[in-house]
Amino acid sequence: MIIQLEKDIPSEQKKSIIQQIKDIQYKITEVHTQYADYLIAIGKNDFDIRRFGNLPGIKDIHIVSDTFKLVSRKWKVKPTTIDLGDGITIGEGQLAIMAGPCSIESEAQVNSIVTHLKENGVRIMRGGVFKPRSSPYTFRGMGIEGLEMFYKICQENGIKIITEVMQVSQIEPMYPYVDVFQVGARNTQNFNLLDELGKIDKPVMIKRGISGTIDELLQSAEYVFSGGNEKILLCERGIRTYETASRNTLDLNAVPLLKEKTHLPVIVDPSHGIGLRAYIEPMALAAVMAGADGIIYEAHEKPEEAASDGQQTLNFAESRALVKKLNRTFALKQEMKMEV
Amino acid sequence: MIIQLEKDIPSEQKKSIIQQIKDIQYKITEVHTQYADYLIAIGKNDFDIRRFGNLPGIKDIHIVSDTFKLVSRKWKVKPTTIDLGDGITIGEGQLAIMAGPCSIESEAQVNSIVTHLKENGVRIMRGGVFKPRSSPYTFRGMGIEGLEMFYKICQENGIKIITEVMQVSQIEPMYPYVDVFQVGARNTQNFNLLDELGKIDKPVMIKRGISGTIDELLQSAEYVFSGGNEKILLCERGIRTYETASRNTLDLNAVPLLKEKTHLPVIVDPSHGIGLRAYIEPMALAAVMAGADGIIYEAHEKPEEAASDGQQTLNFAESRALVKKLNRTFALKQEMKMEV
Amino acid sequence: MIIQLEKDIPSEQKKSIIQQIKDIQYKITEVHTQYADYLIAIGKNDFDIRRFGNLPGIKDIHIVSDTFKLVSRKWKVKPTTIDLGDGITIGEGQLAIMAGPCSIESEAQVNSIVTHLKENGVRIMRGGVFKPRSSPYTFRGMGIEGLEMFYKICQENGIKIITEVMQVSQIEPMYPYVDVFQVGARNTQNFNLLDELGKIDKPVMIKRGISGTIDELLQSAEYVFSGGNEKILLCERGIRTYETASRNTLDLNAVPLLKEKTHLPVIVDPSHGIGLRAYIEPMALAAVMAGADGIIYEAHEKPEEAASDGQQTLNFAESRALVKKLNRTFALKQEMKMEV
Amino acid sequence: MIIQLEKDIPSEQKKSIIQQIKDIQYKITEVHTQYADYLIAIGKNDFDIRRFGNLPGIKDIHIVSDTFKLVSRKWKVKPTTIDLGDGITIGEGQLAIMAGPCSIESEAQVNSIVTHLKENGVRIMRGGVFKPRSSPYTFRGMGIEGLEMFYKICQENGIKIITEVMQVSQIEPMYPYVDVFQVGARNTQNFNLLDELGKIDKPVMIKRGISGTIDELLQSAEYVFSGGNEKILLCERGIRTYETASRNTLDLNAVPLLKEKTHLPVIVDPSHGIGLRAYIEPMALAAVMAGADGIIYEAHEKPEEAASDGQQTLNFAESRALVKKLNRTFALKQEMKMEV
Repeated sequence: MIIQLEKDIPSEQKKSIIQQIKDIQYKITEVHTQYADYLIAIGKNDFDIRRFGNLPGIKDIHIVSDTFKLVSRKWKVKPTTIDLGDGITIGEGQLAIMAGPCSIESEAQVNSIVTHLKENGVRIMRGGVFKPRSSPYTFRGMGIEGLEMFYKICQENGIKIITEVMQVSQIEPMYPYVDVFQVGARNTQNFNLLDELGKIDKPVMIKRGISGTIDELLQSAEYVFSGGNEKILLCERGIRTYETASRNTLDLNAVPLLKEKTHLPVIVDPSHGIGLRAYIEPMALAAVMAGADGIIYEAHEKPEEAASDGQQTLNFAESRALVKKLNRTFALKQEMKMEV
Repeated sequence: MIIQLEKDIPSEQKKSIIQQIKDIQYKITEVHTQYADYLIAIGKNDFDIRRFGNLPGIKDIHIVSDTFKLVSRKWKVKPTTIDLGDGITIGEGQLAIMAGPCSIESEAQVNSIVTHLKENGVRIMRGGVFKPRSSPYTFRGMGIEGLEMFYKICQENGIKIITEVMQVSQIEPMYPYVDVFQVGARNTQNFNLLDELGKIDKPVMIKRGISGTIDELLQSAEYVFSGGNEKILLCERGIRTYETASRNTLDLNAVPLLKEKTHLPVIVDPSHGIGLRAYIEPMALAAVMAGADGIIYEAHEKPEEAASDGQQTLNFAESRALVKKLNRTFALKQEMKMEV
Repeated sequence: MIIQLEKDIPSEQKKSIIQQIKDIQYKITEVHTQYADYLIAIGKNDFDIRRFGNLPGIKDIHIVSDTFKLVSRKWKVKPTTIDLGDGITIGEGQLAIMAGPCSIESEAQVNSIVTHLKENGVRIMRGGVFKPRSSPYTFRGMGIEGLEMFYKICQENGIKIITEVMQVSQIEPMYPYVDVFQVGARNTQNFNLLDELGKIDKPVMIKRGISGTIDELLQSAEYVFSGGNEKILLCERGIRTYETASRNTLDLNAVPLLKEKTHLPVIVDPSHGIGLRAYIEPMALAAVMAGADGIIYEAHEKPEEAASDGQQTLNFAESRALVKKLNRTFALKQEMKMEV
Repeated sequence: MIIQLEKDIPSEQKKSIIQQIKDIQYKITEVHTQYADYLIAIGKNDFDIRRFGNLPGIKDIHIVSDTFKLVSRKWKVKPTTIDLGDGITIGEGQLAIMAGPCSIESEAQVNSIVTHLKENGVRIMRGGVFKPRSSPYTFRGMGIEGLEMFYKICQENGIKIITEVMQVSQIEPMYPYVDVFQVGARNTQNFNLLDELGKIDKPVMIKRGISGTIDELLQSAEYVFSGGNEKILLCERGIRTYETASRNTLDLNAVPLLKEKTHLPVIVDPSHGIGLRAYIEPMALAAVMAGADGIIYEAHEKPEEAASDGQQTLNFAESRALVKKLNRTFALKQEMKMEV
């Protein structure tokens, strides 16, 4: 059961509500986000929800039987929109496009990509400064200095930044320079990291685990939400299957499934999802038709010289064509949606 | 190495070619299809292809290192088109739409669906009369009498039939009534069945195995082709993964991958692919954007009363809306293709 | 509900039972095996089983809610033993060892292996004459003549034969020469083949599908049983997963799971299961400790010269060592079982 | 290329070696562990290893082409043994048995289990105080106070502790009370955590990821080793597959594969691996026959009252029987090993 409390609920009223929940033997978790206060009550006994519905101090109440609660669309039917400032929002009614290199490599590289993005109307740039790598002997990213440089150039050009955070101790130093914190596929169930990202007031994009289920992704989002932060994006980025013809199996089924289960925006990453340059465009367009709220892909002036992931990175001509087609495809999708 | 022989090659010339292949220790398979004669030569020694290139009697020659040969796009770059007669073709430049019930149940049912298809411009009807079922205690289809009835109604209405063949002994009795023989996911590697379907002159649609790789699907197609039948369609219908949120995981990655590897048309089955009615439309539209040549889906006047697969079957209103959107989506896809 | 009828039930009694089942709206399948007659009744209404329990003509009755019925251990608690004649039985209390080449290649090869088996007390030989191959251009086995030769040598030496049947039309010609018909992993859900194997009176070993679930394997066994043949063996042979370090992932979890769910003997095939010679011994011994009733593995005098599967085939020295260790491991397993 | 340096190499010699590596354009990582100093040199150019082999200051040198280096058996052929003190060692020649509850719950609970372990000769106890849980609303463990209590009881009774560490900031407070740090399946690729565990001098057991490959597990171990800590155990704990009959698919193939690829000890966790109490014993015995160096399982006085994982936890009678059978099975395994 989710109970949303009135904004300025008197403490006496709140105490009384909590007492009545305890009376039916339910366990309570108090959740305070940047927008509202909630009580999550979990238990097994049957009870009459009307008993609570009319209590003073309760703004809204609903029974949600999923393992995830506050991120469920059963609780909040209206899609969530994430505001990045400067008129840039993500969610319902528009297609978010995020592009950039796998790794931030140099000032020249960032400048070249920022120019490309501006020319094509892309306002969010991706780029890693902390890189999770299977082997300890490979390039692990430019770190916080790289991020500062990345930020400086983007800020001057009105571009927002999404970049991966790998551990709790990085959150604070990264905070001033980041518009969206990305949680990578290897950290989807790094619960301590999710807990801490719940305490900040910036958007968090959680990638689906390498073989994570859709329900696990939603439970991970629930960690951030119940930690106090409602600004969450979900990202499908390919799952691990027996098929070896592509790097991963981009699971577009996840898009309509997630759109029904949750009110959070759903982003698709075709670069990691299929992992081969030639197939990124068709999969990105397919993702839009499946209902995605945004696309994140890798682009680089010279993919063959990129420090990492070159084989799945678009060059600028491919990227330019993709942006146009994404917008046309999204326009048709919206049009067909209106008509029904 | 694939060698296509001249149509009326003198037997002396053919003998000479075969001898020269044997001289380099290559194993030869002779292939005679409805369209041409080929020699497939497989071996390990290096040799100079120019030695063969100029031999009299050879129309075309190419080295194909894939495990599949004649179905490879390296051999035949131009996409294959399948002609069903009466102006109905499948492949490049048009979107094939096939719809109908999981099982053929009665004359009334077939009539109702045929009317629906005609009203919406769909000219190919699916419907099973031999049903592969996990349990021996469930409905296994109306059999050959059902097929005759199905055929009679369709023929009167100018509708083509695609239906599943489960075993060799069914091919002959089914032959007069079938326009496309479908090989189900459980029979993708039923090599005896594929061998026999290579001997007929009607199109065969092979579904990807329940956990079949893309290369296995192409090798299964190679069985039919090398058996003598070039009229082959491939069908992505969802693979088995760890995810339980949907019945199967429709693998749209297979679409661009197959379109690059083979010249055969690629059809997508979102009904079996995701297995839940609400998600069939977005996945079907996504399939078109991914590059599919056709969509096959389940439709029924009253899905809730269908003998099988009701949960993944569209009703007529949903089916009507889907056909319109499929055509609009395909039109945009074609338009964007032209521009590049 | 499973009803086992009395051996010589008067037809009046049977009619009456059937009528009463129809009265509760249950669908009936009559099953006649080499050992007994059964009625399988499936429906949804609640009913009082005592109503049937006391009817004349009923020997035994039980409600089995699994999707498989007659193969369930809920129906038959005592493990099934399969008698191959000449004192060779498979099941409870002994370890069946079956070994031999992937493909039957020549008289010399069969003789060499038969001698090896006799020297080591192995009384069942495997060897394929019909080979399912992914590619149509590879060796497909010696066929029925190979089988006749195989049989002649084995019969003279008191060795039983297990070999794969790929299609319905092979059953009759193979019948005189085969002791156990093997259904391969690609045919686990070839329901027509299973139906026909239900009509014969020789044992059938069904391999688990390439990505078949345990329940699907049991339902496939139910096809054979309900077709009329109770002599069934099940075989775990590795499943398809994302892991590429081995050819397949031998799933030993299937052994205790199957032993609890069914009364049929469970055989393990480590050769296909892990697919690499060096690991066959540890996996075979592990299978015995997991509770397997038998092991089937590939052995050849010169694996490096085998027509197929050489990389997963033991040479005679390895095979000899394995047999000894299998017997010692099984002895300990039995000993520890007795003590509890 | 791995270069092990002489213990007291003069800095001039080291500089000279490094210079010569740089001369062939190889990238160098210096590794300093509790036992030795290494240079890991990675590059693409061909070179003559003899050029390095005779340089003063080099104790050993070897080319290892795997993605993992120092943990490879190609580098160190002899199996690694981990010393926990008080005569308790893990690795070659003995079977390590670790048992205990999923979660540490209370002093009474720990006392009861410690008594049980002592009675059965088990000297290592498992038990979580920080619990990774999919949902934020469930019990997350007793934390550091629970660990102190756990330690106090174990120390008085000569029992060693293995327990999970979830994040970097827990390492220091946990350090005094832990004998083996466990890295859970959700953290196998938490590279920051692995880096930090490389800096301590206590053993680390890394569980295979939920769908981690064997090579990824070895690369994660390489993180700890190259960070400076050679005391590493690997643990197979079940992978995620399509099969739903068991919680996970315990992959015993990993045991012989890992034993060939690495010198590190391999532990098997049948409790999480199959996830159902009835099957833990057969899978544990099978693991020993597959070649495992140790077994870790869940035991509790009253599994049905356990705070978590009760369904896969043995009661004391089952645990007692298992320990006996594990030891007998391991004795036979060793005996058969000696004979070959």
